[in-house]
Amino acid sequence: MKFRTFLAASAIACTGLAADRLTDYVDPRIGSEGLGRTFIGPSHPYGMVKPSPDCTPSPNSGWLPMPERVDGFSQVHVSGTGGGPKYGNILLMPFTAPDGMSRTTHYDTRRDETIRLGYYSTHLAGGDIGVEITTAPRASVYRIAYPEDRRTKGLAIDAGFFLGYEPVPDAREAQQLVGSQIEIDGNHAVKGYSRVRGGWNDGRAYTVYFYAMTSQPFVGTATWREETIGGDISRVDMGDRTGALLRFPASTDTLTVRVGISFISELKARQNCLDQVAGKNFDEVREELLDCWEELLGHIRLDPETPEHLKRMFYTALYHTMIMPADRTGECPLWNDPLPYYDDYYAIWDTYRSSMPLITLIDPDRQRDIVSSLLTIYRRDGYMPDARSGNANGRTQGGSNADVVLTDALVKGLEGIDWNIALEAMLKDAETPPGGKEEAEGRGGLHEYISLGYIPHGIPRAGNRTVEYSLCDYAISVMADSLGLPDIRDRYIRQSGNWRNLWRQDYVHDGARGFIMPRDRNGNWLDSIPWGHGPEPRPRYVYTPVTFEGPWYTPWWSMFFYEASSWEYSLSIPHDVPGLIEACGGLEAMERRLDTFFDHGHFNVNNEPSFLTPCLYHWLGKPHLTSDRIARIIADNYNDTPDGLPGNDDSGAMSSWLAFHMTGLYPNAGHDYYIIHSPLVRSSTFSLPSGKTFTVRAINFDPVRNPYITAARLDGRQYDISTIRHKTITRGGTLELIMGPRPTSWGSSMFH
Amino acid sequence: MKFRTFLAASAIACTGLAADRLTDYVDPRIGSEGLGRTFIGPSHPYGMVKPSPDCTPSPNSGWLPMPERVDGFSQVHVSGTGGGPKYGNILLMPFTAPDGMSRTTHYDTRRDETIRLGYYSTHLAGGDIGVEITTAPRASVYRIAYPEDRRTKGLAIDAGFFLGYEPVPDAREAQQLVGSQIEIDGNHAVKGYSRVRGGWNDGRAYTVYFYAMTSQPFVGTATWREETIGGDISRVDMGDRTGALLRFPASTDTLTVRVGISFISELKARQNCLDQVAGKNFDEVREELLDCWEELLGHIRLDPETPEHLKRMFYTALYHTMIMPADRTGECPLWNDPLPYYDDYYAIWDTYRSSMPLITLIDPDRQRDIVSSLLTIYRRDGYMPDARSGNANGRTQGGSNADVVLTDALVKGLEGIDWNIALEAMLKDAETPPGGKEEAEGRGGLHEYISLGYIPHGIPRAGNRTVEYSLCDYAISVMADSLGLPDIRDRYIRQSGNWRNLWRQDYVHDGARGFIMPRDRNGNWLDSIPWGHGPEPRPRYVYTPVTFEGPWYTPWWSMFFYEASSWEYSLSIPHDVPGLIEACGGLEAMERRLDTFFDHGHFNVNNEPSFLTPCLYHWLGKPHLTSDRIARIIADNYNDTPDGLPGNDDSGAMSSWLAFHMTGLYPNAGHDYYIIHSPLVRSSTFSLPSGKTFTVRAINFDPVRNPYITAARLDGRQYDISTIRHKTITRGGTLELIMGPRPTSWGSSMFH
Repeated sequence: MKFRTFLAASAIACTGLAADRLTDYVDPRIGSEGLGRTFIGPSHPYGMVKPSPDCTPSPNSGWLPMPERVDGFSQVHVSGTGGGPKYGNILLMPFTAPDGMSRTTHYDTRRDETIRLGYYSTHLAGGDIGVEITTAPRASVYRIAYPEDRRTKGLAIDAGFFLGYEPVPDAREAQQLVGSQIEIDGNHAVKGYSRVRGGWNDGRAYTVYFYAMTSQPFVGTATWREETIGGDISRVDMGDRTGALLRFPASTDTLTVRVGISFISELKARQNCLDQVAGKNFDEVREELLDCWEELLGHIRLDPETPEHLKRMFYTALYHTMIMPADRTGECPLWNDPLPYYDDYYAIWDTYRSSMPLITLIDPDRQRDIVSSLLTIYRRDGYMPDARSGNANGRTQGGSNADVVLTDALVKGLEGIDWNIALEAMLKDAETPPGGKEEAEGRGGLHEYISLGYIPHGIPRAGNRTVEYSLCDYAISVMADSLGLPDIRDRYIRQSGNWRNLWRQDYVHDGARGFIMPRDRNGNWLDSIPWGHGPEPRPRYVYTPVTFEGPWYTPWWSMFFYEASSWEYSLSIPHDVPGLIEACGGLEAMERRLDTFFDHGHFNVNNEPSFLTPCLYHWLGKPHLTSDRIARIIADNYNDTPDGLPGNDDSGAMSSWLAFHMTGLYPNAGHDYYIIHSPLVRSSTFSLPSGKTFTVRAINFDPVRNPYITAARLDGRQYDISTIRHKTITRGGTLELIMGPRPTSWGSSMFH
Repeated sequence: MKFRTFLAASAIACTGLAADRLTDYVDPRIGSEGLGRTFIGPSHPYGMVKPSPDCTPSPNSGWLPMPERVDGFSQVHVSGTGGGPKYGNILLMPFTAPDGMSRTTHYDTRRDETIRLGYYSTHLAGGDIGVEITTAPRASVYRIAYPEDRRTKGLAIDAGFFLGYEPVPDAREAQQLVGSQIEIDGNHAVKGYSRVRGGWNDGRAYTVYFYAMTSQPFVGTATWREETIGGDISRVDMGDRTGALLRFPASTDTLTVRVGISFISELKARQNCLDQVAGKNFDEVREELLDCWEELLGHIRLDPETPEHLKRMFYTALYHTMIMPADRTGECPLWNDPLPYYDDYYAIWDTYRSSMPLITLIDPDRQRDIVSSLLTIYRRDGYMPDARSGNANGRTQGGSNADVVLTDALVKGLEGIDWNIALEAMLKDAETPPGGKEEAEGRGGLHEYISLGYIPHGIPRAGNRTVEYSLCDYAISVMADSLGLPDIRDRYIRQSGNWRNLWRQDYVHDGARGFIMPRDRNGNWLDSIPWGHGPEPRPRYVYTPVTFEGPWYTPWWSMFFYEASSWEYSLSIPHDVPGLIEACGGLEAMERRLDTFFDHGHFNVNNEPSFLTPCLYHWLGKPHLTSDRIARIIADNYNDTPDGLPGNDDSGAMSSWLAFHMTGLYPNAGHDYYIIHSPLVRSSTFSLPSGKTFTVRAINFDPVRNPYITAARLDGRQYDISTIRHKTITRGGTLELIMGPRPTSWGSSMFH
């Protein structure tokens, strides 16, 4: 009950603001609970620093409303991710306890949290301390209000903290401390670092350096190593946990702490602190953040009359799409190439479908930098990442989907990318097995994929790897064609049909015929699959198109499909939907199959492989059915509450899916068009880098009474097809969609 | 002429010492010129810090007598290595020029160098400055004598220097700067780091942190970034070169500079400095170093009457064997496992045959730590290294020869090693292709090796990879057998015969029949090989058993054999010499073949694959022929001068080969015995960890008149075989070899 009261209070606080700024519509709480796992602390666009309370390692954002206990506030987090945690480094915690200088932990109880864009505050009940947080891209700022009493006013800085400490050595997906260090620097500053390996992506050691400056001089200090506290002004890295305790005069009321972060050195952290937040007060830093977001969110303006809850859903979705990957240009400890460097691709399997296309559409220079960084990672580390975090590639979920990101950038005309290097990076994925590191990068099972044309059961994720490699091969063929390399193009066009080699044509399930199903090395279809690992014979369990999980001890990673059923993946052939329809038995059979898919609960709204599936009705010439499905899916699964995202947001994947569909446009990644369906808002105006705008406007907009597009005009001229090219949008104009109560023949063709 | 004079002077200086300490017989100059490339600066056993003048990037030790120019003195080096350079970080250079504070470089001219164990000195002619260097394991000490004049007395510390700067970006095997940083700390200290990637092993970025303390306060400072010099007290890492200039009063005569080094942090570098050299003067630090070496060198004591030049060759050889790999326990930035950590395995292809067995014999606890470190690297990085430097595996030269190191440790009874993990690491090598990283680790061409039983031509180093994988597979079979795993044992016993699949039985060359020769994927023998890379057709050149190099543009790495001819590798089957003899046509044919090998110049003394070949006469029942060859090879190729090593010492490979043979024992790595032949010294006494000793003593010792073993006694009992087991040695005793003018039937059997 308390929880509900709190929520209501929070909602009131938000709507009480004069909502004349787009940033007022961003509510970082949306998707922060339930499956969404979004980050609730302040962050700049693609911000390197993401300060936030650490209350739990699950979700990896570090935050949930309950339990109320908070360990402190650390400076680096990820958003929307599942699996084991990453980051949570350099923990600050104010305290007032009289014995505060004799303890290394100062966890407290949160009360009255306020979570806004670029702002977090809470009251620590035990210490009677108010904590406010905002941030610059590479330095965070804390405003701490101590109580007016005679207790010690203290601040703990824990360089050994990270999210998800596991007492079991080398627990899978757990972070492991490599070392930490702390050093008092005069009476206004503390510096040090945290070095951690592992975590979700099983990465190499990464180091988060910090330089923390206090607005008041401290009058006493202590430092610790593990559980030993003493007066040393520094604790050298001995491979263990270190931290510092700072004591301020009992009379201290407000303390501002500025924390520069760097992945290079403490001195660089200090410079980031000086460059970005020194000389600015808390409110100025937050205002800069808001200005930055205001400009970026303004790249899409919704009709002013759009209901508040839809504006909140939409702008929060844009926000969530643009907080990762993290811009770490100039902060790469591995090389000094003077090129953009982004980390926390988390994961491209999740983001290639909608997050990256959304960035491409509304901030193409940013996407050029993100793509450029992928190519630098390829040149330096040997492979592009599927996921990357803490300066290390890992892990792969399905395909080598960066290939699709590159081709999406190509077909959408991003400039400033070396397409020859791009093809080289894609061919590395497609032709060089990553060997012992196939959990980290490249294509696992590649040898079999090439020699058999599919990945046989027994190799983890054989099903979705085969399907996604086919898509990636399509992406390669497009890139090769663009570079005038017909031999490569033709080879990969052929391979892009490899999904058919796992298509079990005669398999019938729930009225549908033909499914991607497990097959062994000899070409035999498998109706049952051995349990677990180890030499045969093992007990077997029946595998059907609705099998989702294996036995409890079989991790996702070892299943036939990662995070999905065959019902889902058998409809996930975005590069050859006509071929898929044919395989499914033609237009009518496909329509029945899609209806079954959605009506019988086979659709998995929280899972990226099904992102395009509601739009497949377009290929049947029935865009109104797409519109029906999209409206229903959003109404049933998305809202503007903390539970408002139906799955792990995955670096903005769920959010960008929502944002696109609200405008009535949805991309097919790797292709240059967007599907047009009924928008959820009256109008969306895209600001283009050229200075022009492109508007999607619904005439007779009324989602209840006029749910269907009956006709369309592009710049006043009749527009009959149900897709629009990227370049049509980027040259500016207006797409008018005339809405009506019943579908017409509009959109029965997708392309001219 | 000057050069010769200098050498003579140096020799006099050495012999002028009272040679009552073994350390007096170590002359780091031996092997430092010509092909040897040994490191001439001071080093503790397995020392992490190796300070030395930097005069040239070739050799990678940084030193040659000419040119006389010296750029300065950097703190980390390797010894005996070929190929591109590595390290050369944190360069110190004293100067006296009046304009010294306005330049970043202060190169000078060396005069009158003195090079002793743990000691280096020179006079800088331009600055009129004397420089002396000694070192602790993790901190170096410089004693600088400035002239009595009114010039500026200065010291430059260059954090951006490294060996082998190449203006061409990403030049192969060249080091590349990632970043550097410098910070003045008060008026007695400077700290910072150098971060560099690439180099010979194409490694990830490594960071060398330093903390330099001066015995006198400096009275002025400047710092630089690239070519810009100014008064800033720090230069944050911006991905470029930084450094500091320190000015001391003109009256300064002697300055001691203590430089702590760490691969973890500046604070750790400071602690290393404080722990190891603070509070000690230059001479005390050197005495500690000498005491440490004295103890270690004493593990083998030669007969006191041994001629000086032989003692110099012998103890210098022991010294060269024990300066690498570098003990970096507690200094690994990648993990914090509380286990020994060694870096600079450079390379195991070079060292597994004799360096590591020598360490095993005279310092088994050290070898246990070196092996343990290999297993930690496997657990953390995925593969054991063949070579490793700068905390990164890379590159492989032939096999996965760490496998042989493990089995050598097993059969010699090293304790404290987890043999199950050892087998796991070996099977990773043998069964998991390293994919795109096969230049760095694991077994390249593994798929073909397994499916065809050999590596077909076209895959780089197909010849020696096949031969060495066979040996490594033998090592695996021994390990598996010891662990009671007969299936694995049998599989690898079978694979250990794979060298036969490249044995072209009917090929005749220079009177010998049967050679390891190139073969294509279809099993066809190749008499000629295409030039270069690229699609066929390409011009071809004839490949014969004496082909050593390909055309000028074909690097070693792409040849059929790495650094060798087929004549060499066709005799390099150490795990199945009887099988080799049979393949060569039997005992007589083999004896003729060996004679041809040595007499017709096919033997390559500077190359590790031929290390065992002179001993193959033992398998013919003629150990006296081994003795003849060994004596001849040493006389012709080894001496106690700077040219005294016939090939790259490769981390002690050449040196340990010499040291073993001087005692009359030589190991066959991976086997538990030593071959016995005529020693070059009257007696050698091995100190064993148990406190016992084992002595090899030649009765009637006279290499000229009594070159042959005519009989032998072990602890007074007749001993007829020409090998001795490791455990026989380690339980202590005396092996007496009765020497005579003519061979007898002694040793016609190798084993009981």
